[in-house]
Amino acid sequence: MINTYAALEAGGKLVPWQYDAGALGRNDVEITVDYCGICHSDLSMIDNEWGMSAYPLVAGHEVVGRINAVGADVSHLRVGQVVGLGWHADYCQVCSSCGSGDHNLCSKAVGTIVGRHGGFADKVRANAASVVALPDGMDVKTAGPLFCGGITVFNPLVQFDVKPTDKVAVIGIGGLGHIALQFLRAWGCEVTAFTSSDSKSEEAKQLGAYHCINSRNSNDIEQAAGRFDFIISTVNVALDWNLYLSTLKPKGRLHFVGATLEPLNIGVFGLIMAQRSVSGSPVGSPATIAKMLQFAVQHNIKPVVETFKFSQVNEAIAHLKQGKARYRIVLER
Amino acid sequence: MINTYAALEAGGKLVPWQYDAGALGRNDVEITVDYCGICHSDLSMIDNEWGMSAYPLVAGHEVVGRINAVGADVSHLRVGQVVGLGWHADYCQVCSSCGSGDHNLCSKAVGTIVGRHGGFADKVRANAASVVALPDGMDVKTAGPLFCGGITVFNPLVQFDVKPTDKVAVIGIGGLGHIALQFLRAWGCEVTAFTSSDSKSEEAKQLGAYHCINSRNSNDIEQAAGRFDFIISTVNVALDWNLYLSTLKPKGRLHFVGATLEPLNIGVFGLIMAQRSVSGSPVGSPATIAKMLQFAVQHNIKPVVETFKFSQVNEAIAHLKQGKARYRIVLER
Repeated sequence: MINTYAALEAGGKLVPWQYDAGALGRNDVEITVDYCGICHSDLSMIDNEWGMSAYPLVAGHEVVGRINAVGADVSHLRVGQVVGLGWHADYCQVCSSCGSGDHNLCSKAVGTIVGRHGGFADKVRANAASVVALPDGMDVKTAGPLFCGGITVFNPLVQFDVKPTDKVAVIGIGGLGHIALQFLRAWGCEVTAFTSSDSKSEEAKQLGAYHCINSRNSNDIEQAAGRFDFIISTVNVALDWNLYLSTLKPKGRLHFVGATLEPLNIGVFGLIMAQRSVSGSPVGSPATIAKMLQFAVQHNIKPVVETFKFSQVNEAIAHLKQGKARYRIVLER
Repeated sequence: MINTYAALEAGGKLVPWQYDAGALGRNDVEITVDYCGICHSDLSMIDNEWGMSAYPLVAGHEVVGRINAVGADVSHLRVGQVVGLGWHADYCQVCSSCGSGDHNLCSKAVGTIVGRHGGFADKVRANAASVVALPDGMDVKTAGPLFCGGITVFNPLVQFDVKPTDKVAVIGIGGLGHIALQFLRAWGCEVTAFTSSDSKSEEAKQLGAYHCINSRNSNDIEQAAGRFDFIISTVNVALDWNLYLSTLKPKGRLHFVGATLEPLNIGVFGLIMAQRSVSGSPVGSPATIAKMLQFAVQHNIKPVVETFKFSQVNEAIAHLKQGKARYRIVLER
């Protein structure tokens, strides 16, 4: 039996709940969960905000742990190995996206907590192809958030060929943004943080920002006209996107990883006159996750975490919902 | 003196008007205008729709003619050479965009009909760096529209590395779209035309489209879900852009060269889930224009034109305004 903390209904408190996972699939692994980050999308799934939750729902998709068992056909992972598991727990492996290394764009990819049970548990299972080994030297306690928050901001640097000579801005310094600053600093970029919180400015600089701009001050943003090659937005609120577009250089890109619900009212002239792009992307493929982990170890990049015991998961969720997390919560034994 | 057809006020009929262009600049050339296409942006400038017109206004920026005189410092063009001139008549040559070969994105680039006098005239002047020689074998009568309409749809193929294996759609089969179909067919792509006009479907196929979809039929568009790598929109009306976004594959791009005035109400989830991009671009650099001309000659690509005499310019403009042009109007002597 697998012991979990599950929501039994939409928005419910998490309570101890067990399930029988049955025989291990030939291509699956079972992981003993040592740590699990809490992501905003865990809360969205617990609350059924996206209408695709099934209950009992076991959230948790920033897992770090040890391989406890491997399926008969799994050859690249071994029992005892320290691994991580992120948003996806399986891919079709046969579509054009999977065949091109873009598993994260596979339309049949299975979410770790969508129709499956995730990492707020003592064990979790996944297809072995979605599980990535931690490299030597990686801090296991802080690694979990890299598997969703981290890869979500790292992947665009790879996908869009961000260069060390680029000037890059990050909108929103939270669970994703604070990791983005670290990656971009190590990437060689001149990094700017847009944040609405003055209290975060100093920390943003410690994390890698050369400059901070108050995201609520239109005048300050206007001063940055034509400055950036690339902007990553991690926020889920509506901002004056045309104003942010104006801070892009010719050929610049405004890239969304935060799921703003309101439509983007983009003026087409601002795109045409300077050949600008607007885009978005979700997490990253296992190969890109592996690349990210190596880069993080090399540059000593770590999510800044607060830890709670698994048994305190409800307190941890309340802390996150209150906007108090600095910057990511990790559950531990 | 240079003899032109000029608008003396916003929206005015064009009337004969002369001006003295003075001594030829050291880096300029004077072109004897043999042909000049009429672009929608000529009408916008005549009517001062963009608030940047100065009168008398001489429109015309799809010029083909012969070099009549070269400035003292011009060495790469000679008198008698057949050349073309498009939207830009000068660049700063020292900014980052010019230095990177992106002269068309130079913020100080000077429009041929913006604060200068254009090609509805017997002669026109421009900085020699903005003038491109016609390659051997090019049809002079139909070449004019390549210098604005043509380069506007050719440039994105170069900028965004469109591949022969890509499936590409063109929205709007008019002055720009009918050239885009020809380029894309020769580029090797499986080309689809979105057009609201059933009468254009057959012609679209003759121009290069493998498939036509009625742009007013939502059901037909829905059938194309996930089909395209790249869509070029040449229209200036508001469509259901999220519906068109859904016809893109993962990593697909919806690219605007038509200046839709209404904001694009883009949903961010549609961008994020499939790593899609939305973008725009204006004309192209002289180097890309030269590349386009070579490609057009190689593949026998020609704008489909209706000709009017220069003296009939007002009738020609009326014809264009009535939406009757099939597909581009060229003025001739």
